[in-house]
Amino acid sequence: MAVTGTWPTGRTLGFGGDYNPEQWPREAWDEDVRLMREAGVNYVSVGIFSWVLLEPRQGEYDFTWMDDLLDLLHSHGIMVDLATPTAAPPAWFYAAHPEARVVTRDGVALGPGSRGAASPSHPAYQAAARSIASRIAERYADHPAVVMWHVHNEYGAPVGEDFSEAAVAAWRAWLQQRYGTLDALNEAWGTRFWGQVYGDWEHVTAPGPTASTVNQAQRLDYARFTDHQLRALFVAERDAIREHSDKPVTTNFMANECPTTDLWAWAREIDIVSNDHYLTAADPRGHVGLSLAADLTRSVARGKPWILMEHSSSAVNWQPRNIAKRPGEMARNSLAHVARGADVVGFFQWRASRYGAEKFHSAMLPHAGTTSRVWREVVGLGRDVAALAELQGSTVQADVALLWDTESFWAQDQEWRPSVDLQHKERMRAYYERLWRDGVTVDFAHPTQDLSGYRLVVAPASYLLTAEAAAHLTRYVADGGTLVVSCFSAVVDAHDAVHPGGYAAPLREVLGLRVEEFLPLRDGEVTTVRWTRDGATTLCADVWAEDLVLDTAEVVAHHVDGPAAGSPAITHHAHGAGHAWYVSTRLGVDGLAPVMRAAYADAGVLAADLPEDVEVVVRRGDAADYVVAINHSEAAATMPDVAGTELLSDTAVGPDLKVPAGGVAVVRVSREGGGTSR
Amino acid sequence: MAVTGTWPTGRTLGFGGDYNPEQWPREAWDEDVRLMREAGVNYVSVGIFSWVLLEPRQGEYDFTWMDDLLDLLHSHGIMVDLATPTAAPPAWFYAAHPEARVVTRDGVALGPGSRGAASPSHPAYQAAARSIASRIAERYADHPAVVMWHVHNEYGAPVGEDFSEAAVAAWRAWLQQRYGTLDALNEAWGTRFWGQVYGDWEHVTAPGPTASTVNQAQRLDYARFTDHQLRALFVAERDAIREHSDKPVTTNFMANECPTTDLWAWAREIDIVSNDHYLTAADPRGHVGLSLAADLTRSVARGKPWILMEHSSSAVNWQPRNIAKRPGEMARNSLAHVARGADVVGFFQWRASRYGAEKFHSAMLPHAGTTSRVWREVVGLGRDVAALAELQGSTVQADVALLWDTESFWAQDQEWRPSVDLQHKERMRAYYERLWRDGVTVDFAHPTQDLSGYRLVVAPASYLLTAEAAAHLTRYVADGGTLVVSCFSAVVDAHDAVHPGGYAAPLREVLGLRVEEFLPLRDGEVTTVRWTRDGATTLCADVWAEDLVLDTAEVVAHHVDGPAAGSPAITHHAHGAGHAWYVSTRLGVDGLAPVMRAAYADAGVLAADLPEDVEVVVRRGDAADYVVAINHSEAAATMPDVAGTELLSDTAVGPDLKVPAGGVAVVRVSREGGGTSR
Amino acid sequence: MAVTGTWPTGRTLGFGGDYNPEQWPREAWDEDVRLMREAGVNYVSVGIFSWVLLEPRQGEYDFTWMDDLLDLLHSHGIMVDLATPTAAPPAWFYAAHPEARVVTRDGVALGPGSRGAASPSHPAYQAAARSIASRIAERYADHPAVVMWHVHNEYGAPVGEDFSEAAVAAWRAWLQQRYGTLDALNEAWGTRFWGQVYGDWEHVTAPGPTASTVNQAQRLDYARFTDHQLRALFVAERDAIREHSDKPVTTNFMANECPTTDLWAWAREIDIVSNDHYLTAADPRGHVGLSLAADLTRSVARGKPWILMEHSSSAVNWQPRNIAKRPGEMARNSLAHVARGADVVGFFQWRASRYGAEKFHSAMLPHAGTTSRVWREVVGLGRDVAALAELQGSTVQADVALLWDTESFWAQDQEWRPSVDLQHKERMRAYYERLWRDGVTVDFAHPTQDLSGYRLVVAPASYLLTAEAAAHLTRYVADGGTLVVSCFSAVVDAHDAVHPGGYAAPLREVLGLRVEEFLPLRDGEVTTVRWTRDGATTLCADVWAEDLVLDTAEVVAHHVDGPAAGSPAITHHAHGAGHAWYVSTRLGVDGLAPVMRAAYADAGVLAADLPEDVEVVVRRGDAADYVVAINHSEAAATMPDVAGTELLSDTAVGPDLKVPAGGVAVVRVSREGGGTSR
Repeated sequence: MAVTGTWPTGRTLGFGGDYNPEQWPREAWDEDVRLMREAGVNYVSVGIFSWVLLEPRQGEYDFTWMDDLLDLLHSHGIMVDLATPTAAPPAWFYAAHPEARVVTRDGVALGPGSRGAASPSHPAYQAAARSIASRIAERYADHPAVVMWHVHNEYGAPVGEDFSEAAVAAWRAWLQQRYGTLDALNEAWGTRFWGQVYGDWEHVTAPGPTASTVNQAQRLDYARFTDHQLRALFVAERDAIREHSDKPVTTNFMANECPTTDLWAWAREIDIVSNDHYLTAADPRGHVGLSLAADLTRSVARGKPWILMEHSSSAVNWQPRNIAKRPGEMARNSLAHVARGADVVGFFQWRASRYGAEKFHSAMLPHAGTTSRVWREVVGLGRDVAALAELQGSTVQADVALLWDTESFWAQDQEWRPSVDLQHKERMRAYYERLWRDGVTVDFAHPTQDLSGYRLVVAPASYLLTAEAAAHLTRYVADGGTLVVSCFSAVVDAHDAVHPGGYAAPLREVLGLRVEEFLPLRDGEVTTVRWTRDGATTLCADVWAEDLVLDTAEVVAHHVDGPAAGSPAITHHAHGAGHAWYVSTRLGVDGLAPVMRAAYADAGVLAADLPEDVEVVVRRGDAADYVVAINHSEAAATMPDVAGTELLSDTAVGPDLKVPAGGVAVVRVSREGGGTSR
Repeated sequence: MAVTGTWPTGRTLGFGGDYNPEQWPREAWDEDVRLMREAGVNYVSVGIFSWVLLEPRQGEYDFTWMDDLLDLLHSHGIMVDLATPTAAPPAWFYAAHPEARVVTRDGVALGPGSRGAASPSHPAYQAAARSIASRIAERYADHPAVVMWHVHNEYGAPVGEDFSEAAVAAWRAWLQQRYGTLDALNEAWGTRFWGQVYGDWEHVTAPGPTASTVNQAQRLDYARFTDHQLRALFVAERDAIREHSDKPVTTNFMANECPTTDLWAWAREIDIVSNDHYLTAADPRGHVGLSLAADLTRSVARGKPWILMEHSSSAVNWQPRNIAKRPGEMARNSLAHVARGADVVGFFQWRASRYGAEKFHSAMLPHAGTTSRVWREVVGLGRDVAALAELQGSTVQADVALLWDTESFWAQDQEWRPSVDLQHKERMRAYYERLWRDGVTVDFAHPTQDLSGYRLVVAPASYLLTAEAAAHLTRYVADGGTLVVSCFSAVVDAHDAVHPGGYAAPLREVLGLRVEEFLPLRDGEVTTVRWTRDGATTLCADVWAEDLVLDTAEVVAHHVDGPAAGSPAITHHAHGAGHAWYVSTRLGVDGLAPVMRAAYADAGVLAADLPEDVEVVVRRGDAADYVVAINHSEAAATMPDVAGTELLSDTAVGPDLKVPAGGVAVVRVSREGGGTSR
Repeated sequence: MAVTGTWPTGRTLGFGGDYNPEQWPREAWDEDVRLMREAGVNYVSVGIFSWVLLEPRQGEYDFTWMDDLLDLLHSHGIMVDLATPTAAPPAWFYAAHPEARVVTRDGVALGPGSRGAASPSHPAYQAAARSIASRIAERYADHPAVVMWHVHNEYGAPVGEDFSEAAVAAWRAWLQQRYGTLDALNEAWGTRFWGQVYGDWEHVTAPGPTASTVNQAQRLDYARFTDHQLRALFVAERDAIREHSDKPVTTNFMANECPTTDLWAWAREIDIVSNDHYLTAADPRGHVGLSLAADLTRSVARGKPWILMEHSSSAVNWQPRNIAKRPGEMARNSLAHVARGADVVGFFQWRASRYGAEKFHSAMLPHAGTTSRVWREVVGLGRDVAALAELQGSTVQADVALLWDTESFWAQDQEWRPSVDLQHKERMRAYYERLWRDGVTVDFAHPTQDLSGYRLVVAPASYLLTAEAAAHLTRYVADGGTLVVSCFSAVVDAHDAVHPGGYAAPLREVLGLRVEEFLPLRDGEVTTVRWTRDGATTLCADVWAEDLVLDTAEVVAHHVDGPAAGSPAITHHAHGAGHAWYVSTRLGVDGLAPVMRAAYADAGVLAADLPEDVEVVVRRGDAADYVVAINHSEAAATMPDVAGTELLSDTAVGPDLKVPAGGVAVVRVSREGGGTSR
């Protein structure tokens, strides 16, 4: 079968959301489809939590309501992304298979009454999930409303690690598959430390509660195993669908917010990448986090357009303080996703639920109904999205890559690290935000992938970096690339073992230095770093310092105080045809400015000179460029040299582009006229 | 049998406490009764934790020591409130019935070695509790010392929710009783959300650990079930006693401090309401919390005099920092309870324990013995209480009611609310304290009860408010009442489902507005509200704002900044013959002053102009009023126009009443002379 | 057999560490021994976690590698402290005996994959531990490399309390042994409180989860039981070794850092006391904590030289922020231990591990190898230690004792105390640090031991103090001693029951006062104390006050404010030939200065007038005194009147001794010349 990895809308963007009409009486459905049309909705996702309604008792099916629903939607021209409902096993499943419940690390079995899968490793759940997926695919493969399959929901949350008996049995089988022999496992995990050598596969346990900290290599492998089990569930459902249909299959990711899935591996299994994104309300710069998630989603999709499956029209309901979006904010959020490669703008959910856990989650149609501000803005956004039809299929290009390795995150965030304050996610966000503020569009890249297309590669948090990956980066620099490496990088190999030769030893050649010792700071301690390369300046650092011994690297900044007072803090190294930078302490987004400015210069990357908090990204179409400018600030902004047609207002603009406070502009810039230089 | 709901002391107040002589050798008992007489003690509660001493082995009883004790007390004229000891199942019970242990939500079974009941739902515990209660009642029904029965101890703490197998079985039976059909249950709980529909009663579980948050309607019902099971235990013991005795039966409440009992329902089952109250040491204004508890106790007792069963002479032992009472504080506390309707002043406990968990709890007779300050003050308080004999049976009247609905508290404090910072208890206390500072005596009232006797009704935290209750409040206003409603009210119905029409929809008519969206503030964020009605002033708000859309309401204050800047913050609405106020943000006690002042004016309620931190309450007797004035401040206070006989000093006072710093005055004001205008 | 309790090095100090060559290929061993010689290492501890390597399957042994290792070490003149590996049961043991796993108080069984013993109470573990210890002893009893036996590792952590079925069974047996009859147990635990009386030994449970707080006397006994079970394990292994060898046996303590062992009892069972010490990184004055631990170790060793079995060359890995040591700090730490009686300087570990939980723990040979700063300092320290050979066997004498009773710590740190802020460890450290700053060397002493050799006894935290111990202290004062007692002392007896007569009643005679009531302060509250004895001064206090009633004591300071305003805060009492001081509030290290200065004067103790942060201790040899001066400050210090030979530099010094910033001097002062007056 020929599966296409393209949103099947033709030359238009998708606009819609999750639709759960089973919560409402049948008469409400007619109002729903009428209002969907009013709002410009052209697709919905249905059936995500409908298992018990489709299979009220094991083996007894009721598809009549779904038949009715799909017919209704089709008759109104609304396409359907049809879900398998396996994220919500019915109560009868739990009653029939209590041993298939997920068990926490502390041994608590998780029962029904909420959502989330049963044990990914239990044969009964695996069989039931495949079975319902197959039934649905069989019945609706040829339904004209259905344009795509939506498998499960947000794999990896709320169910990730599982310590049930089924999980432990699967874990042993996975280990045998991975290592072949116990000797290989013992070597990989370093079990001769603390006398943990295994002499029998049956003696290997899950990394459950222990008296002291558990073997970290074992925990790292358990993270890999967890990811594998979840992905195997997806593959099984996908393949069950494939037996009946060649329409594209997706499952909604959670980009950087899901700790249990390695999206590089997942994206390879999926026809069209889709993502859910929710702002972190406590983060006053949540729109930067949004951009990061969108760029990561596009990157795992290898640059192809992707689907924003879920975001919110206003507040969510599961954070401590669920901040509502202010007027215009939803549009800025939606169009920022589009700017970074989304071809579909979706919401959770169409109509706010009166019942249950998510009743305080905003929706396209809120509790307050069609007289509300939110509804008016949703209708307006539908018009905006329609006006951007021609962006469909266009792509985003980047000269800069940030290294993203989920395994390094798994490894770094374990117990017993030199400092609890040095966090993988924090460093990733700080470097990302520096680039965001500098107007530099970035891709994320895996450390071992081809990097030759990038002028600059930044490694913000590369605790686990294999010797092979380090050699790859060394060659990248030797061949003319520019590399920026943050502290606490290349510390361990794929089994969380310190590299022979010491910390960062695999990067010694490219960085021109050795890291002799880590020097974590005390809680709240702040140190001063003196940048002396081109125009002296003083930077604040905290959390971390290192005792560096330079081979051939050049000192560009040194510690004024703290445990490394007088020693190098930031270095530059000319290696082959390229440049390698090392930042051995923790600098904030401001402190990273001179470092990155110098690296841009080495790499020939042009930072944009944008007004503060104005975000600009270019989508490149076949015949034109589309400059998307989003003004997150409270002042109008002017951008020189952007001329063309502003699509939202359908007006000519230029030579300067004015974007009002809180506004968005999308300008078609003719490629013949040279396109945009960004 | 004719049971009277009156403290059987005749025209005198009760003074005494819990007495646990089983901890001491027999010779100490004689000293105890001698000292009780010295202190003016006229009653004690005995046997509260004595199960194992009365029934050392299952079915083997030893009443000899209790016979001796009751005889001794009677011979010294000390009345006895005789307890059933079911809050302390013997070790042999736990050994014989391990499956009757209470199980926590995380599955941990709670064993012996402490206190607290076994599983309220286990037949073995139910039978054992009934049996020992019956035995005690049978033996002592006619003992002349016994004047009242004290069932169990502080139902609801430390044992509340229980997840044992017995509990789950009882839960299913309770649900069948409540809902009749599974369809009704599925509808009530909204189980079509997240695919939780139940097809078999046996599939319904307790709301235990789940992967994500559990169905909130299910949890709310589990709170109702928990309350029901505890109350059923009480009723069973009470009825076992009734078979032998017609003396009044009580059980000691914990007013607003017990999260698992709905006292409106409990009070209906009880002959005389009694309450335990302990100051919250961390609260520098703990005496306001005391007043709240006392007013709530009187309110659930429907205005009848009640028993202060336990309070403390000084520090307790179970708080993080157990602050000792300073000289005079115990008397102020005791007499504040009397002022608000208590006819009995009781303590935990008579003599401080040398052993066990409560050895650092103060007592009437402390470790330091009869030379101590505490003992001297106890003796003085005994004299004071005796001097107030004529207050017995007098009542407290209030023109203002605060709405108190335990179910709303249960519902609001669940997971996944718009903001963790908006707490039911905090709002209740803030509004209460505003009224307290304004010298306005209040009752608490259930939202559905007759409110026509009140000039003003305040709804500080009414998250769960049914359409019926809202209609009741609307009629109350239409008929001329004044209503003040706080933010986040009338959000859900009895099943925690959002009202059709949106937040606060049932109050739209009476408030003249709609609540379109909640706007929680960030952690620590403070906003400014401008009051513009009569003399502009500026108020500080935090935690919360709302997006209001006014129908016919009048804006009396608006937001200056924050997410609702420029929008209405506080409104007034003339509805029918009455007035309705809505306060859509969180104001502190100071910020509430202009709001409540305006509401008093609408309602014709007269706020007292009292010196700061002077508390004045009136008890109304058959022939006279009793003005109780408590000076919590460190300065002497003068109150004009209080003339009569000060009972503690037996002196004539007036026309002005002087109350020394830290002092208390109780003035008999003749009704012939017009009584008091308060 | 004649066992000597002396480090078998002859007249030299030991220098070395834990050596775990099983983590490395055989070829690395040769490099190891070569580098050990380079560093001056003369001993290593081996085999600590090697159980699974010596017994790969139950009953199958492989000693070949150990034979090889011991021969290699011996051939290079390196002595061996040979361990029993029972702190790391093999995976096969857990698989064969799942019921022998340790169970937490919440019922979670702790599995393999980490370290820490199995259940100390399970017969299978007890037998397996004895068996492997016996096998090792049998094989290597006569190996010339072996000079000492190292049983287990750090008993009490990470495995302390255990709630397995085996533990509960052993607990009941231990109780029967301790109490003989249930009546005695019921009396000791005060089970008549809360109706907890036991009628059958089988009904007694471990103090596991309960609805409210568990009986504190029961918990205190469980702490004693836990200590007993761990010690019984040690004794069993020791005795198994004794059957084959008369070389000395030790096990490494953790001094004040292990909450589950009572070292007074342990030291009695051990031939040579040894200790592990790690700085608390969060403590900027961690070197004071080091001194405390060293003094405590020497004290439990009854003044005999002891072994510093483990400390670190730089950072550890298990704290939140693992601060690296700065240049010179390792030497100061090592020599501070020597100054306070250590004859051996040991490290964890020789070579840093690449794998496992401790890979970020520093080592003598770090990841960075022999070019590193740490290695250079280790080699230098080896030279220093060799230069101090003649200190071997010399001792430390003290005129002042601090009372240290582990049982009091167990009792005080339970739930439901008057204030969570008053901590046993904090008070101990505050008084210790006051003495440290005053240059006064102290021993620790048990309250019941002979104290007649001390001029001054300080009781910083003596919550549990028996009547016998109080009488002992009273006699000590009557006979001319000086005693300083802190607040919250002598509150309970050995069963955590309040003393008859009230708080501190057993000390009434010696202190000349009664403690009527505790007055804990609120969170963050600070009060002022006015010292009026000799020159008025004002002190800050917090956390605590007491209501004192003086009999014959003299007020030397009173409360200016707070709950005890105007009342006595600090008292002095002349009793018999001595003096007794009572400090009824919490003073910081600064605030304690005038109190202790006055007590020194009473006692005739001479406080040293040292430069700030210079530590001076004297070891007394047969023929000479050795003044060890450690300058922890960043300024050079001069000490008058220290003349002799500085051993580290082998130069004559005097009459003044200069110690550079961060430096250490060890001066041999001839006894003929009068030795030192310190």
